[in-house]
Amino acid sequence: MSNERFDRGWKKLKEINGESGERITENLKEIAPDLAKYVIEFPFGDIYSRPGLDLKSREIATVAALTALGNATPQLKSHINAALNVGCTKEEIVEVIMQMAVYAGFPAALNGMYAAKEVFQERD
Amino acid sequence: MSNERFDRGWKKLKEINGESGERITENLKEIAPDLAKYVIEFPFGDIYSRPGLDLKSREIATVAALTALGNATPQLKSHINAALNVGCTKEEIVEVIMQMAVYAGFPAALNGMYAAKEVFQERD
Amino acid sequence: MSNERFDRGWKKLKEINGESGERITENLKEIAPDLAKYVIEFPFGDIYSRPGLDLKSREIATVAALTALGNATPQLKSHINAALNVGCTKEEIVEVIMQMAVYAGFPAALNGMYAAKEVFQERD
Amino acid sequence: MSNERFDRGWKKLKEINGESGERITENLKEIAPDLAKYVIEFPFGDIYSRPGLDLKSREIATVAALTALGNATPQLKSHINAALNVGCTKEEIVEVIMQMAVYAGFPAALNGMYAAKEVFQERD
Amino acid sequence: MSNERFDRGWKKLKEINGESGERITENLKEIAPDLAKYVIEFPFGDIYSRPGLDLKSREIATVAALTALGNATPQLKSHINAALNVGCTKEEIVEVIMQMAVYAGFPAALNGMYAAKEVFQERD
Amino acid sequence: MSNERFDRGWKKLKEINGESGERITENLKEIAPDLAKYVIEFPFGDIYSRPGLDLKSREIATVAALTALGNATPQLKSHINAALNVGCTKEEIVEVIMQMAVYAGFPAALNGMYAAKEVFQERD
Repeated sequence: MSNERFDRGWKKLKEINGESGERITENLKEIAPDLAKYVIEFPFGDIYSRPGLDLKSREIATVAALTALGNATPQLKSHINAALNVGCTKEEIVEVIMQMAVYAGFPAALNGMYAAKEVFQERD
Repeated sequence: MSNERFDRGWKKLKEINGESGERITENLKEIAPDLAKYVIEFPFGDIYSRPGLDLKSREIATVAALTALGNATPQLKSHINAALNVGCTKEEIVEVIMQMAVYAGFPAALNGMYAAKEVFQERD
Repeated sequence: MSNERFDRGWKKLKEINGESGERITENLKEIAPDLAKYVIEFPFGDIYSRPGLDLKSREIATVAALTALGNATPQLKSHINAALNVGCTKEEIVEVIMQMAVYAGFPAALNGMYAAKEVFQERD
Repeated sequence: MSNERFDRGWKKLKEINGESGERITENLKEIAPDLAKYVIEFPFGDIYSRPGLDLKSREIATVAALTALGNATPQLKSHINAALNVGCTKEEIVEVIMQMAVYAGFPAALNGMYAAKEVFQERD
Repeated sequence: MSNERFDRGWKKLKEINGESGERITENLKEIAPDLAKYVIEFPFGDIYSRPGLDLKSREIATVAALTALGNATPQLKSHINAALNVGCTKEEIVEVIMQMAVYAGFPAALNGMYAAKEVFQERD
Repeated sequence: MSNERFDRGWKKLKEINGESGERITENLKEIAPDLAKYVIEFPFGDIYSRPGLDLKSREIATVAALTALGNATPQLKSHINAALNVGCTKEEIVEVIMQMAVYAGFPAALNGMYAAKEVFQERD
């Protein structure tokens, strides 16, 4: 029955970030397949599938939080990609990351910006 | 000449969060008036006054970051107010805070939600 | 169908921490009832219900993490209670918190210890 | 034999922050007297007693770090007092805390400044 | 006289994590030999040598904290090794790390799990 | 008119850390030139140019904070260089970083020390 949440999450993750689902599942399949399952189910099947906030705003929130926390670069890059996929412009992403200088300091904003730069270059 | 930035920041802060400018200025006037000046100038005169991202998205980013960091409740409450002032619905704010369970854990999301609850009650 | 996870989580939370479920549900019922539901379902219905690690070890892990993070005192106190409920001795909890001086610094360990002191006094 | 470290630490702590040693010892005596002992021995008997950096610089470093971390207000206030005791001026402390806006964001600097304001008022 | 603590710490560290003592001492010998000495003395000579909590529980606490903090991968890997050395199963370590999704978010849990994956592969 | 702040910041940054200004400007020129401008203006044109705290003490504060935060290694290395440039001895920097074991835990101090080791080696 949790299949319903998983299926919804897998579809949502596909919509947001292409092959992310496969990559996480592949990375964790030997060590912790259930963590991959939870990643699909809770964040994507439950949270990102909720009404009440559009996907663009959800990705802005996530890029902001991961830039501010400053200790999860792979996930930040993944969500910069996701933000672009759901309709954010590069400029909007740059603005969100720059704004984090105010709330988490300039090093967090700079390191977030370098992550964005890599993502933008990979996509070009 | 930095007056131009200050004036723009003061006006922007007024637009976003009513009497915040007076409160910060009052709180810091004896100990560190220049910090109050910088708060007006850099975050509000420079950052929030930039084009490229609408104010609603800016406040979503800030509420997300402060919920995730989890160590600045007064500023989080101030920006939940600001988010409402610039057009976010309560539902959207609740969604942003809830989503932080994914990126910063359930305690951060719960404590952010309790802060939102207080702000909503104060405004009613 | 998510009822199965909720029911398992509610039962597990009852086992671990008495009236916590009611308290969280009550606190969030007006602002974000779904967050209360997720708290029951994911942490307790999914994670704490898993085999592979006994409840005592799970609470040791949680008390350690919340002491180290240092920004979620209400949840730390709740899990110090939970740790006692599932069989940790006060001495073991004191040791876990003290050890965090090594990994998160003395202020985190001291503030965690003051939280434990309050919980121990409330229970006596 | 650890008495030598404890005695040196106790004396150093007296020099830096008056009755802090008694307060920590009193607060922890029932729950974790060994943690109080370690606080005297390692930070004060080992670290603050080292040559190679003057006490004023050591307190500047500590006030900076605790302001930036933003989750240990009681210890920050204690070290603002200590900084004044070992020769920092109020102005220097204000500058250190203000500078943290750059590295940890404005909320951390503001909350650190409010802590300094309370300490300054208590001492006046 | 601090030799007693150092000797006890060195022996404890040997028991927990083989050649770690030599590696830290070697890494720090030119820049900060006293920091290596303190690492042996305080964490291992004082804390891990205490009665009141078994080594397996101590390593569970440390793996949990370092996964949650998310900014000390080399030390997390070292303590995943240590956890295995003192009797934790791979499954138990996986459970501890997975549980941190609840308290520090999914990125912290994922990055901790990738660290565990590397450690497990190196040992195989 | 913001040129005055920029010019003062550029000169201050030159004084503190040689070619840093060019490097940041170069790194950000395509993605976020305004962030480079703000880095020059606010931290260096406003904060580091203030009277009331000497540059040596300012760099001690920054090295302490970045070591404690533990998630901004490139900026920590840059400020270890800056600290040496404005008159800190290697020994003083080592002491500041070592002291962070007390406030942010041993992993933060160890990782900060490894960063210092790299900087010292690059300069030799």
